Amino acid sequence: MNTDEICSFVEKFRLADASSYAREQAILHIIDTIGVALAASSDPATQIALRQVEPKPRGAVAWGQEQHYATGDAAWVNGIAAHAFDFDDTSMLSGAHLSAGIVPAVIALGEQLGVPGAAILEAYIVGHEVAEKVGATLPSMESYARGWHGTAVHAEIGSAAGAAKLLGLQGPALAQAFGIAASLASGIRRNTGSMTTALHSGNAASNGIIAASLARDGFTANPAIFDGPASFFDAFCWRGEPGAPIALVPLGRPLGFEDPGVGIKPYPMGSPLFSVAEGMLAWKHELGFRPEDLVSVKCALHPNAYEVEGVATTRAPQNAMQAKYSVPYVVAAISVFGALGLEQFSETALADPEVNRIIPLVEVGQLEGTSWTSGVGQEVEPPTRLELRLQGRAPLVKMVNKVRGYPGGGLFTVEETRRKFFDCVRRIWPRDRAEAALETLLGIEKIGQWRKEAELLQRG
Amino acid sequence: MNTDEICSFVEKFRLADASSYAREQAILHIIDTIGVALAASSDPATQIALRQVEPKPRGAVAWGQEQHYATGDAAWVNGIAAHAFDFDDTSMLSGAHLSAGIVPAVIALGEQLGVPGAAILEAYIVGHEVAEKVGATLPSMESYARGWHGTAVHAEIGSAAGAAKLLGLQGPALAQAFGIAASLASGIRRNTGSMTTALHSGNAASNGIIAASLARDGFTANPAIFDGPASFFDAFCWRGEPGAPIALVPLGRPLGFEDPGVGIKPYPMGSPLFSVAEGMLAWKHELGFRPEDLVSVKCALHPNAYEVEGVATTRAPQNAMQAKYSVPYVVAAISVFGALGLEQFSETALADPEVNRIIPLVEVGQLEGTSWTSGVGQEVEPPTRLELRLQGRAPLVKMVNKVRGYPGGGLFTVEETRRKFFDCVRRIWPRDRAEAALETLLGIEKIGQWRKEAELLQRG
Repeated sequence: MNTDEICSFVEKFRLADASSYAREQAILHIIDTIGVALAASSDPATQIALRQVEPKPRGAVAWGQEQHYATGDAAWVNGIAAHAFDFDDTSMLSGAHLSAGIVPAVIALGEQLGVPGAAILEAYIVGHEVAEKVGATLPSMESYARGWHGTAVHAEIGSAAGAAKLLGLQGPALAQAFGIAASLASGIRRNTGSMTTALHSGNAASNGIIAASLARDGFTANPAIFDGPASFFDAFCWRGEPGAPIALVPLGRPLGFEDPGVGIKPYPMGSPLFSVAEGMLAWKHELGFRPEDLVSVKCALHPNAYEVEGVATTRAPQNAMQAKYSVPYVVAAISVFGALGLEQFSETALADPEVNRIIPLVEVGQLEGTSWTSGVGQEVEPPTRLELRLQGRAPLVKMVNKVRGYPGGGLFTVEETRRKFFDCVRRIWPRDRAEAALETLLGIEKIGQWRKEAELLQRG
Repeated sequence: MNTDEICSFVEKFRLADASSYAREQAILHIIDTIGVALAASSDPATQIALRQVEPKPRGAVAWGQEQHYATGDAAWVNGIAAHAFDFDDTSMLSGAHLSAGIVPAVIALGEQLGVPGAAILEAYIVGHEVAEKVGATLPSMESYARGWHGTAVHAEIGSAAGAAKLLGLQGPALAQAFGIAASLASGIRRNTGSMTTALHSGNAASNGIIAASLARDGFTANPAIFDGPASFFDAFCWRGEPGAPIALVPLGRPLGFEDPGVGIKPYPMGSPLFSVAEGMLAWKHELGFRPEDLVSVKCALHPNAYEVEGVATTRAPQNAMQAKYSVPYVVAAISVFGALGLEQFSETALADPEVNRIIPLVEVGQLEGTSWTSGVGQEVEPPTRLELRLQGRAPLVKMVNKVRGYPGGGLFTVEETRRKFFDCVRRIWPRDRAEAALETLLGIEKIGQWRKEAELLQRG
């Protein structure tokens, strides 16, 4: 029974069961999640969310903000901030962005409970593993095609798993926490490119906490929600017949963090566009071409990338969120600025006349001879064929399917993660504050009680 | 475009557009929703929910409780209470229980805004109409078969519509409120028979408020969420091909409150069992048989009722929630107690030896010659064939498909609604308090500012 298997894994897992490699990887992902959330701490999506909740004198920390909030509210706002720039990490097994939903949940609940840092790390690894494997069981293009945003749905289950671990739930209460969580999971992918994409992570975070807390207090639910007809998998459009047996992708040994690893985004945008960016940036640096030399760029995308909401249809992005899914914009921005960081998704960059002149020169189509797949590698790291024409030169062609930060191109090192973190937080913190926060997080396993250290993550 | 149609209806609707009949009906449903919530105000589901939120000095009222809460929290707890006894009303068009999600949202937000009672009534009618017609567009047995609980999903859209109406949202903000709401809609029907069923209504209530509030403050979402591929309808397993055009069941003229009308539950349990109850109660009263005379009862249910979660499978209910979906229990309780009110779903009633002796004498099967349908009448008022054998008598057989409180059997009058309300609140309020609250609610259209009156609904 899938629910039994998940509950047994959550109950029995101990931090020591994760290799030191996996623990180090997990810590890098906690750091990356907090970093990208801090970068978005004054973004309108985060600030509008903050207006919906009330500060309270004693509560959990909202990252990069001044006040404390109720645990669920802090998790909600932090989850929204973590996905607001679409700069948060990517699970290769589920194809979704999980940490933005799970890290805020275990950090805020851990703060409320005042647990050791190691317990937070343990809860995060458990939650991420459950989310990845549930997500991999439901990788389904069918689910995505029907309209579900895995980032919301899978992360919510992981957030509940992490929160349940922190609360020490066992037996029926644990199974019922998943029953409740399944009934709170939601997120329509047609909202991709709007602020609601970020809301998906915020909800995943706060709903996981509420599901586990309700179950702890005796609230009941179906204790076998991942099994049988009309289960969680059926509802979220698993591709089989309703009620057909569904075999869960096995949990642990190896953890997803061990194999194939979890991607850290090198660019603040939708990962389906990464191979476009990687190829164009390389050309820009190798050839040093000037924007005015550009005649045309043809991008042939794997269908898994091409059919992502907005990728093929957004030619003239109206805001940064849309730009993050616009191939023409990304190609134009790289051609003009030679870089693709947070600045390249600012209003100034979007309004740049040279960028807007180039956008119509970019063609987007589908890569011939390929078709939809839910295979791990191609789903998350889809290959792209690029054809660049420059004034007075023969056309250049290349295939790209490896991206730095992802397993195919090599996962981020500690140093690369550190650099991204500093880049994310430099607008809100002086360097020494950033260094202190980073060192604290790198040593999270050794923190005796996660409470005072949490305040290091507030506004500088 | 469906989204345009819904937005235009919400924007333009005025209370005066509803006939005085519809307005009176709507008021009865507000009263009924509050009544059944008050009955459940000390139920464990409500009390566990209450433990998750913090009281605040100025806030909205939680019905039958002592403290005030943040608007969303009050709506959440009230929504949970309203569905906790499964005694709340039934939309004939969508087959779902909508008011438990919508009434708490418009009442709590109305209190926060201090609007006139007429504005709350207007918002409720708009919200209920949108929920019914969206639900009727997706009545789909496919959606239910796949695992979705319409009560959660449809009500959430209605709650957002009502909240948006109270906030005066228009244009893109209104469309985006629906985009956000669609991404928060959830609820797995496999949780039927557990407390999580009630959580579905609570979430519908609070999520509707948060969707409308976020949209008011500029939070963005897809402004056409009810149209095109991967829309709300596709995600919730509309029966057609993904992306196939979906024609919305038209809004207003007549309102669902006008035709066919909205059912008020005469018994605190799942409506698929109502015809069983209606038939058995009539026999018990007509024949006055003693429990010991009962030899057997055969119940042949329409598949729409038979396949509801738990109906055919729950022979020995472990708790009141399960009993509410157990045909054998309902038959046994009527045979022993001759009534089917809140007392018949108490622990004492469940433990009654005579009831438990009779349960094995009840057979449940499917009604021959019928099959699944999403037709309005048969979906919500499914017919049942009953066969009763009593000691020393020839077998009795009857077909039942009309239930008092529902359109087929005659909607509740003001007097019947009043009687149910008093029955619901008598354990928490003295009669004069109940009378005062009822008169206030009957006159809700004339209340200048919904704030002080709200406190009449607190603990007595």
